[in-house]
Amino acid sequence: MTAPAGLQLPNWLDAAALSHPMKRALSFANNHWTYADLHRSTSLAAAILADARGQEAGRIGILSANRPGFVFAVHAATRIAAPIVPLNWRQTSEEIAWQLRNSTVRVLVVDDERVDLASRACAGLPITIVAMKDLERASVLPKSLNGEEPRIDLGQEAAVIYTSGTSGRPKGARISYGNLWFSAIGSALHLGHRSDDVWLAAMPLFHVGGLSILFRAVIGALPVVLQKRFDPESMISAIAEGATLVSVVPFMLQRMLEVHGDARWPASLRRVLVGGSSTPPSLIEECLRLGIPVAPTYGLTEATSQATTLLPEEAVSKPFSSGLPLPLTEVRIIASSGAASPGESGSIEIRGPTLFAGYLGDEDRSAGITADGWFQTGDVGYMDDEGFLYVVDRRDDLIISGGENVYPAEIERVLRGHPSVVDAGVIGVKDGDWGSRPVAAVVWRGDPETAAANLLRHCEERLAGYKIPDHILLLPELPRSTSGKLLRRELRAQIASIEEMSATGN
Amino acid sequence: MTAPAGLQLPNWLDAAALSHPMKRALSFANNHWTYADLHRSTSLAAAILADARGQEAGRIGILSANRPGFVFAVHAATRIAAPIVPLNWRQTSEEIAWQLRNSTVRVLVVDDERVDLASRACAGLPITIVAMKDLERASVLPKSLNGEEPRIDLGQEAAVIYTSGTSGRPKGARISYGNLWFSAIGSALHLGHRSDDVWLAAMPLFHVGGLSILFRAVIGALPVVLQKRFDPESMISAIAEGATLVSVVPFMLQRMLEVHGDARWPASLRRVLVGGSSTPPSLIEECLRLGIPVAPTYGLTEATSQATTLLPEEAVSKPFSSGLPLPLTEVRIIASSGAASPGESGSIEIRGPTLFAGYLGDEDRSAGITADGWFQTGDVGYMDDEGFLYVVDRRDDLIISGGENVYPAEIERVLRGHPSVVDAGVIGVKDGDWGSRPVAAVVWRGDPETAAANLLRHCEERLAGYKIPDHILLLPELPRSTSGKLLRRELRAQIASIEEMSATGN
Repeated sequence: MTAPAGLQLPNWLDAAALSHPMKRALSFANNHWTYADLHRSTSLAAAILADARGQEAGRIGILSANRPGFVFAVHAATRIAAPIVPLNWRQTSEEIAWQLRNSTVRVLVVDDERVDLASRACAGLPITIVAMKDLERASVLPKSLNGEEPRIDLGQEAAVIYTSGTSGRPKGARISYGNLWFSAIGSALHLGHRSDDVWLAAMPLFHVGGLSILFRAVIGALPVVLQKRFDPESMISAIAEGATLVSVVPFMLQRMLEVHGDARWPASLRRVLVGGSSTPPSLIEECLRLGIPVAPTYGLTEATSQATTLLPEEAVSKPFSSGLPLPLTEVRIIASSGAASPGESGSIEIRGPTLFAGYLGDEDRSAGITADGWFQTGDVGYMDDEGFLYVVDRRDDLIISGGENVYPAEIERVLRGHPSVVDAGVIGVKDGDWGSRPVAAVVWRGDPETAAANLLRHCEERLAGYKIPDHILLLPELPRSTSGKLLRRELRAQIASIEEMSATGN
Repeated sequence: MTAPAGLQLPNWLDAAALSHPMKRALSFANNHWTYADLHRSTSLAAAILADARGQEAGRIGILSANRPGFVFAVHAATRIAAPIVPLNWRQTSEEIAWQLRNSTVRVLVVDDERVDLASRACAGLPITIVAMKDLERASVLPKSLNGEEPRIDLGQEAAVIYTSGTSGRPKGARISYGNLWFSAIGSALHLGHRSDDVWLAAMPLFHVGGLSILFRAVIGALPVVLQKRFDPESMISAIAEGATLVSVVPFMLQRMLEVHGDARWPASLRRVLVGGSSTPPSLIEECLRLGIPVAPTYGLTEATSQATTLLPEEAVSKPFSSGLPLPLTEVRIIASSGAASPGESGSIEIRGPTLFAGYLGDEDRSAGITADGWFQTGDVGYMDDEGFLYVVDRRDDLIISGGENVYPAEIERVLRGHPSVVDAGVIGVKDGDWGSRPVAAVVWRGDPETAAANLLRHCEERLAGYKIPDHILLLPELPRSTSGKLLRRELRAQIASIEEMSATGN
């Protein structure tokens, strides 16, 4: 549910700059901006964007790596009440062009490295390209700022964020300012809020998981340490320099542990949010052993990032859980028979003021929203008798084998529990007898000759017979998205080609 | 501004009880309630209140000292979406009766000590009296709860809180659930929010300053240590036992310092909010010397308590200030020439989502609200060049006596109601014990010998004890402007010279 139009708050960057002008707002590489600096840079950027946008009501696309101008552009768009469309630049120009058309982008902010990609994607479209460096270097404030809005209307659209959508076309989720604000507040209430907190942002800002950090920070008047790309050494340095709140995906955390070894982590580090239901419990346990305040999190674009988070102090007793719902988020489990009992798996549904305003082209949110406002996430999970959520799997990935539900994530977790397994992915393949059967791909660091027998025994000890993969293939690495999510369609294609080769005797 | 109807949040007590059932929610004397306990007691109280209310849409009055049932009643009323009217029990039965009628109270919750007062106040009114002890002792949940609302509509009225208007009759300020929620969030963002915070509530819950603590606590899933009345020893004990957030008025703080002496205050104490612009800077300085994290605060009923708060770390350099606006509150100063410059005094105006929904009988908020939503507080102050507020004078005439607002106009109205009084004027004079005390000047057309006793009796029948003037002087006439307005400064000078004469024996 989104806030009805009309409820307005003071512009959050204005409020932060007014009250804390000399407080650090942003760090990038060796540069720092106070809130007064950020306010000024944002005003300059807003003037440029307003000028480029003219009288058009179109959205403002951002095609850029993480950098200061990305932050300026985001806050500048808020200032002129223009919705942004952060674009995943790992996509092809065709994919980007489709999203630009779908979301009627009229101004596209592009960093130096993506000028060619942008011009291919914009070919034939009525889009004004603004160079990121022009936003960043602007220094002369215009006399009057066209379309500047002093307050923020919580009911208004703030962003269209495309969800990767494991199947088919990406869908543009419409996120309101209210969604972002309530998400930041729910997060602050859940994680605690201290004036000396510092957010570390290393995930791409084009994903909701990265973007939402900017809003949590400005709404709480906290600094963001922004990193261009994930680099374990830089993360560790930023934490040593005082970052207290970190958000990562499992593979990032894994790499940080490898680099950092058994060295002591600073006591100032308060929470390390780890997104993704596929976080191996062994990773959580390793963090707990090392004193890392790990906070497994279940989030999704449609709920404006965080929906549930397990707090470090709870992780000891419930290392497999994704935690309790944030205070403003309602979560329920619907089984085939209705509301699920504790421990019973079913569809995860979410309600509350962080819930998006619908997909582009589906403005009445008829898709996946019940009459009383529950969003059907498509994910499968259960809650224990204390209300802690356990995410079992994405429904899209469900394998139904002989009438039994088989969740790839469960098998992947078991496989990753083997000491010689670096990574594991499971997909379902059609089967004449069973409907569908699980097949696994594994990155193996032992003797390949022993892998199959070893893993089979490992699985047999831990899984019901119908969940044991029919085949286990060894791969040098698995296809993962920039946010670390397993790309099952690509894995499926790889597995299909390998199976085809072996079938033909190649 | 209040939230438009339609924006709903999960019931905050449900959310706290769901996530933190075993966490302490309330302490009173030597009794403790977990959030699960509070949830259950509230459900029982809600059933009783819903039953007493029947199909009527009237409000629920509360006439009680601070005690657990007050807390149950507040949350129970939220559960059945019935607005509460917390009543100042230091008033006379006539004053209370007027407020009961004005706010169409249909159910009145009364503690043991106020049964007589309640029955006098309710005489002839269609009001069902519910004994507080019945709310507190209830133990059997009814099968179905009449009118229970699972969610909270932020646009809906939550409470009517009477402020004694400058012009005689008290005015009922309509506070919405949104006002309470945004106030709690603004406070949490400003003061910081830690899961181990504990609120200490010793101010009367019938004032917005006490009542709002209940909402800050439940919205943050924090415990409240509730005290029946102010007692410095009990306050000091509660702080020693871990209360981290305290809200007091200056005379309470003064008494705590006297009792505690130079002993060390616990490091766990994070913020001591001190309301009232009349806080002597010497008191602030004494707190700073003793390491008490004092946080001078400017608040008012119409902005749902806190509007600005000086943080302890800022108090060293600005001990005279009431601090920066809370993040969701806009404050501006309007001088006669328009927007005031830094340092220039003017009328303090406030805007934002904590601003009340208008006074009863003035639902369109035409009184004191500009077209673009600024509330004219009537208080006078200035902001420095860093945006810190300095309150110069609370409404022109307000007398704050022992933390209670005493409005001269109200006493004047009572005095003028006496058949022998031709004219009456009241001012506040400084008082070592109470901060300020009312003194009256009267033009009397009867026997001067009988005036004092006569007027005292007249006042005692109509005014709470703390509103009765300390002295009543007889004057041949009062200083008034050509338009008939009482010239209080001149009156003050006249009274001062008369008192000085009597002090010197002249």
